[in-house]
Order: sequence, then structure tokens, then C-alpha cells
Amino acid sequence: MVAIGHTRWAIAEGYIPSESSFSDRALVSHETACFLNAGDRNAHVAITIDFADREPAGPFRITIEVRRTLHLRFNPHRIPRDSDYASIFESDIPTVVQHTRLDSRHAEVALLSTVSYAEG
Amino acid sequence: MVAIGHTRWAIAEGYIPSESSFSDRALVSHETACFLNAGDRNAHVAITIDFADREPAGPFRITIEVRRTLHLRFNPHRIPRDSDYASIFESDIPTVVQHTRLDSRHAEVALLSTVSYAEG
Amino acid sequence: MVAIGHTRWAIAEGYIPSESSFSDRALVSHETACFLNAGDRNAHVAITIDFADREPAGPFRITIEVRRTLHLRFNPHRIPRDSDYASIFESDIPTVVQHTRLDSRHAEVALLSTVSYAEG
Amino acid sequence: MVAIGHTRWAIAEGYIPSESSFSDRALVSHETACFLNAGDRNAHVAITIDFADREPAGPFRITIEVRRTLHLRFNPHRIPRDSDYASIFESDIPTVVQHTRLDSRHAEVALLSTVSYAEG
Repeated sequence: MVAIGHTRWAIAEGYIPSESSFSDRALVSHETACFLNAGDRNAHVAITIDFADREPAGPFRITIEVRRTLHLRFNPHRIPRDSDYASIFESDIPTVVQHTRLDSRHAEVALLSTVSYAEG
Repeated sequence: MVAIGHTRWAIAEGYIPSESSFSDRALVSHETACFLNAGDRNAHVAITIDFADREPAGPFRITIEVRRTLHLRFNPHRIPRDSDYASIFESDIPTVVQHTRLDSRHAEVALLSTVSYAEG
Repeated sequence: MVAIGHTRWAIAEGYIPSESSFSDRALVSHETACFLNAGDRNAHVAITIDFADREPAGPFRITIEVRRTLHLRFNPHRIPRDSDYASIFESDIPTVVQHTRLDSRHAEVALLSTVSYAEG
Repeated sequence: MVAIGHTRWAIAEGYIPSESSFSDRALVSHETACFLNAGDRNAHVAITIDFADREPAGPFRITIEVRRTLHLRFNPHRIPRDSDYASIFESDIPTVVQHTRLDSRHAEVALLSTVSYAEG
């Protein structure tokens, strides 16, 4: 299959609440970047995190294997909770990136998902 | 009416929770791919499912009739629940694809919808 | 201000639940198409509704005034509840269209919003 | 890093509920425009607000610093609550803009986020 997607992606809105109503990992408040590599070789992606009030972090490097999806949970060891951040993804081959948040500060889970901004 | 849309679409983020708080089909946790064929002939779409840790499934083939919408519920017989997946849609004429999830793991239903990634 | 947007828009996913937990108009289950006309003359928009299993309805015609926004609630007299539908918008000048649903089948309101598919 | 994004953005759908179930600032009903400036100089953005039934407000001017994100909460002193509005962003360098709403009219928080419409 021909690769689908773009090589540069950005998520302007990131925010991981520190509170959760559940201890089950699937329901702890979290954010995920979902990658699709529909191409015929591995995709190497560099992730940069921009903050509101400090220098950017990264690049962090990941690999998405051939014809696989990778749903990457943002690492709370690298991204402080309760802080605004944004993320930029640069890949060596086209991929598709989508962004999801599960917010369980309250027992009623709120969910959002959006295709990221693409170019390149 | 002139066809509107693209011929290649991708949803990087798919996940069907196994739990639901309701037995009513409309409120069981599910995901839907919504197609619009505004053109003047039938659209033939091949669907491929990519996973995190196994070979892709498909292509599965569907037809969207002339000037109709088709809201296709992802089939739990083909896509395991509680597993990350992604989907790719290739059509012979332009269509528009949107992705919806209804998550009723809790009695309070969470809902998301996003226009899929388009190209071609 | 120069007009911003496109002249053709589509929403592939439409569905108005028949049930609501509230009688307050703001909280009755509904869908809205939100238009922005940032241009310097009125925008004339033709709306066509496609269904899953019957002929399309419309075109219905609306006007968005100069430098105004119009948040148009889909009319349950024209669109049956609990039925899949899709919508196509054709404007004589560029506009921006966004789609919102408020689902109050349960007392806990679910909310979604997405920028529509654009072309032209 | 090369700048990523566009110079003109629009959010067709804006609405800030007047009611909230919480007094904690993070959980009061609000809307946010999230900016990412991945470029190598400051971004100067002019914000115009269009309404349904009155003249536009603004432009309001903000600066997003180099390699920073700015999550800007819409100001209820400038935008009446319970009123439809839309917003237009014009920047001197490319940025990425995303739109978020937290609706806490009910104790169960509803959340939405969408990449804004981009051009230029």
C-alpha cells in the first residue's frame, strides 16, 4: 500500500489532568497520540514538546513499524500534569496522527479526539 | 451534484471498549465510520484495518449508493475489543468519511466525532 | 476583511436522538451547523440532506449576513430523529462551517464539535 | 525549527455557557484557543470576534513567544455568555490553532476539542 499522510504534525492543545477517579490504567486521565503507518517501511518520528513558560523538551524518538498503528500515551515523567503543552511530530515518511484525551477527574469520563494539524 | 470529498481516508485512532452500561444497541459502546457519497454513481470502498501487533486485516468491501449516507458500525467479529487499531479507506470515487465513538463503559455516555484524515 | 473559508462543505455524520433529559431548549438533544461569514457581502447557502435509505431533501436556502456568525439548529421537522443523515453546504462565497451535537439522552450531557469537510 | 501552520484561522462555533457546577477555575465552563508557535520568532496575532446579531469586536492583539504554546481562555468580559460567536485569527507568521470547550453546566463535565479551520 502507498504511504498515506504527512511528515509534519502538530497538536496545539495538550493538558493532562492530575486527578482521576479511577485506578484502572485504562481510565486514569491521560492523553494519547495515535500514529498510523500505512507505508512499506518503518517510520521514525521525532517528538518535540513545547510549553507555555519554559524551553521545549525533546526530541524524543519513536519508531512505528510497517503497516502498524501505535497509540502512544504521553509520559507523565516527561510532561508535567496540569500544565499547558503542545507537541510537534516530524517523521521520515508520511504517517497519520490523531490526538485523544480521556479526562476522568470526575467519575463521568469525558473523551475527546481530533485529527492533528498536518503539513509537509 | 458533483462528487465531494477524497478517495483515500484514514482513522489513526480506533478502540472499542468491551464494557457497556446498556444493552440497547444504540447505547452499547461502539465505533462508526460515516460515509457520504454525494456523487452520481455508487462508491466502492475497500477498508483495511491496521493493528498494533499483528498483520493488517482486510480489505473488506462495501458500497455506498448514489446520494446516500452510510453509517457503518465497526464489526466486533472482525476487530477485537479493547485493542488499538487504525483504519484506511480507499474509494473509487470521492466520498467524505467521519469517525464516531460512543463509549458507555460508564452510565454517563462519552461521545466523540472527528472528520477523518483525507488525501487523494 | 478578506473572506475566509471554502464554498463547499460536508458533514458525513448526522444523527439527532429523539430522547432528551431536559425540556430547556438549550439542553434538548440537537445538532447545529455553525457558519462564519467573514467576507464583505452576504453568503447564500444551499443545504442538501442525504439519508441512508431515501432520496435527498432540499436544497434549503439560508443567508449568512456580512461579518456575522449563524448557528443553525437542524430542523426536526425536516430531519427525522433517530435516523442517519449527512449534509452538504454550497455557498456563493467562502464561509467556514462547524458541526456540533448536544446529546442529552442521559442526564449527563455529551457534546461534540468538529470542523466540517471543506473543498472548493 | 521551521515554522509550522498557517497565518489565518477561524473557529465558526463559539458558545460559553453561563452556568457552571464548580467554582474551581479549571472547571468553570470556558472556551480556550490554543496556539502553537514552533517558529523562530514571536508571532503577533489579531483576534476578531463575530457575533450573530451585532458588529464584530476587536481586533484584540496577543503575542505568542518563540517555541512556546499559549492556551488563551476567551474573556467573558469581551464575549457575552450564552451567545453565539465565531473567531478569526490573523498572524504574521504561521501558527497552529486548536479550540477547546469545557462545559460544566452539569456536574458531569463535557469536553470538546477541534483543530480550527486553517488557510493562508
